Amino acid sequence: MDGQISESTVKEKTKCQSLSHNNVRDLVDSVDAFLFDCDGVIWKGDSLIDGVPETLETLRSMGKKLVFVTNNSRKSRSQYAKKFRSLGISVTVDEIFSSSFAAAMYLKVNDFPKDKKVYVIGEEGILEELELAGFTGLGGPEDGKKTALLRPNSFFQHDKSVGAVVVGLDQYINFYKLQYGTLCIRENPGCLFIATNQDSVGHLTDLQEWPGAGCMVAAMCGSTQKEPIVVGKPSTFMMDFLLKRFNIPTSRMCMVGDRLDTDILFGLNAGCRTLLVLSGVTSISTLEDLSNHIQPEYYSSQVSDIPQLLSAATL
Amino acid sequence: MDGQISESTVKEKTKCQSLSHNNVRDLVDSVDAFLFDCDGVIWKGDSLIDGVPETLETLRSMGKKLVFVTNNSRKSRSQYAKKFRSLGISVTVDEIFSSSFAAAMYLKVNDFPKDKKVYVIGEEGILEELELAGFTGLGGPEDGKKTALLRPNSFFQHDKSVGAVVVGLDQYINFYKLQYGTLCIRENPGCLFIATNQDSVGHLTDLQEWPGAGCMVAAMCGSTQKEPIVVGKPSTFMMDFLLKRFNIPTSRMCMVGDRLDTDILFGLNAGCRTLLVLSGVTSISTLEDLSNHIQPEYYSSQVSDIPQLLSAATL
Repeated sequence: MDGQISESTVKEKTKCQSLSHNNVRDLVDSVDAFLFDCDGVIWKGDSLIDGVPETLETLRSMGKKLVFVTNNSRKSRSQYAKKFRSLGISVTVDEIFSSSFAAAMYLKVNDFPKDKKVYVIGEEGILEELELAGFTGLGGPEDGKKTALLRPNSFFQHDKSVGAVVVGLDQYINFYKLQYGTLCIRENPGCLFIATNQDSVGHLTDLQEWPGAGCMVAAMCGSTQKEPIVVGKPSTFMMDFLLKRFNIPTSRMCMVGDRLDTDILFGLNAGCRTLLVLSGVTSISTLEDLSNHIQPEYYSSQVSDIPQLLSAATL
Repeated sequence: MDGQISESTVKEKTKCQSLSHNNVRDLVDSVDAFLFDCDGVIWKGDSLIDGVPETLETLRSMGKKLVFVTNNSRKSRSQYAKKFRSLGISVTVDEIFSSSFAAAMYLKVNDFPKDKKVYVIGEEGILEELELAGFTGLGGPEDGKKTALLRPNSFFQHDKSVGAVVVGLDQYINFYKLQYGTLCIRENPGCLFIATNQDSVGHLTDLQEWPGAGCMVAAMCGSTQKEPIVVGKPSTFMMDFLLKRFNIPTSRMCMVGDRLDTDILFGLNAGCRTLLVLSGVTSISTLEDLSNHIQPEYYSSQVSDIPQLLSAATL
């Protein structure tokens, strides 16, 4: 019995390998596209992580397709492209898949009626993507200035033509928005409840973590007693969309991320190769903890290990 | 097989009886204390429900002990006593058990250190009860005016001496409070996470329902990935406290409420008699719906049915 246990433990351990000069070439050669998470992989808050430009350049020069997949819904794709440029990296809008874009695309592929409105508990990025997709968004930062006070005989009005509530990270969250979204979901027949993602916390500034969209989404689950449709990682909605657009089989994609429960799970759910980087929220001890059942194929300290190990492998 | 099914269905149905002149005397005679929920039973928003003063007077004249148990944490016990008085009902502070008081009592009976602070996501009632119990509260409505903006290099400071976060209904909920409470629970060793209650919505104004404490509590569960200690209904913490104070066995108490998942469950959990009134959030169709598994012993349209049926029984 003991022998069996230790054998299976060894097997478990060999499943997740440290990226090294022995295996990096195999990984890179067997992959046509690299999907990068952004926060904790490309940048941390507003600081670029070391060696990112060289890494992306190396992979591009090898003919690899690059896609940047982020659960952060605060920005639209064009706002993310601007952020990449400000950090000295040239990325096109088409290479970016943010959960704000995913929310708009979910409505589009599901033929959401153009005469219905979308109430947004979230920031500018969601509103911008909705508009680009031809939908009418309400709420967002604007409603962060409004108040809903509990006064006798006051009646809170909401728009009966709202057919979907999209909830993402919202630093302007307030009781007004919570009541607005709750009324739409509870009272407008067939109103959709869409979550950009459910990350509990995120490295939204350089120095610390903050409540993520999972906080606002949970609040709405608490008041409506309903579960949302999730369009960001680890849901495979974005992956299905990517597949159609690039026509690359998921087995020839590698998901690179810093989170086990979103990035790596997303990659595993979709049948991708997976690489965990330790430059974000996950530590080696969390990865190796017995309570963790999400095992990436490879792990490494940061993305710049890829070109460095490739050089070492060539020597 | 068919016969067995219909027999068990009949049994299920006879379990919950409509209060009538045939059974009201049995119920009242077998009970020493009536525990009343407030919202939807005594009042709706700021309007008294018909016949309440006469009902309470009748029961008092029969020597029954009356206790008012509310999950609404916005007010302290003395603020509730004032509300009762403004509605023309005389109730003492000792007869009121609000979830704001329960939160303070939970800390007291568990010897929460006086040199530790309590961060409050909630309103004045919680802060007042904490102070009366000798604890130092932070946050509350005051922090509703503060903002936490996601700026590069800004660092959100929190008090390391916070040993408990109490979360209740909060119409001034914002990102600042969510980050403050999340940091305390995630970073202060041993910090307690206490929920006054988890009601999804509540009739906070006369005309409509609003997100309840369950919304704010869920938000904190979402960001901390922890489950709270619940002190309000249906947790029996308040009941254990009541038992010690009044020395009346729960089998001789009757819980009267308008909610199945808090009031009636609370009564059933504690071994009380139970009476559901239909003057609040629960309709007869919800009660009789097959998906509902919480069955009170009796139901009636409103509390004033008690004296009316008693009179009819005497005739």
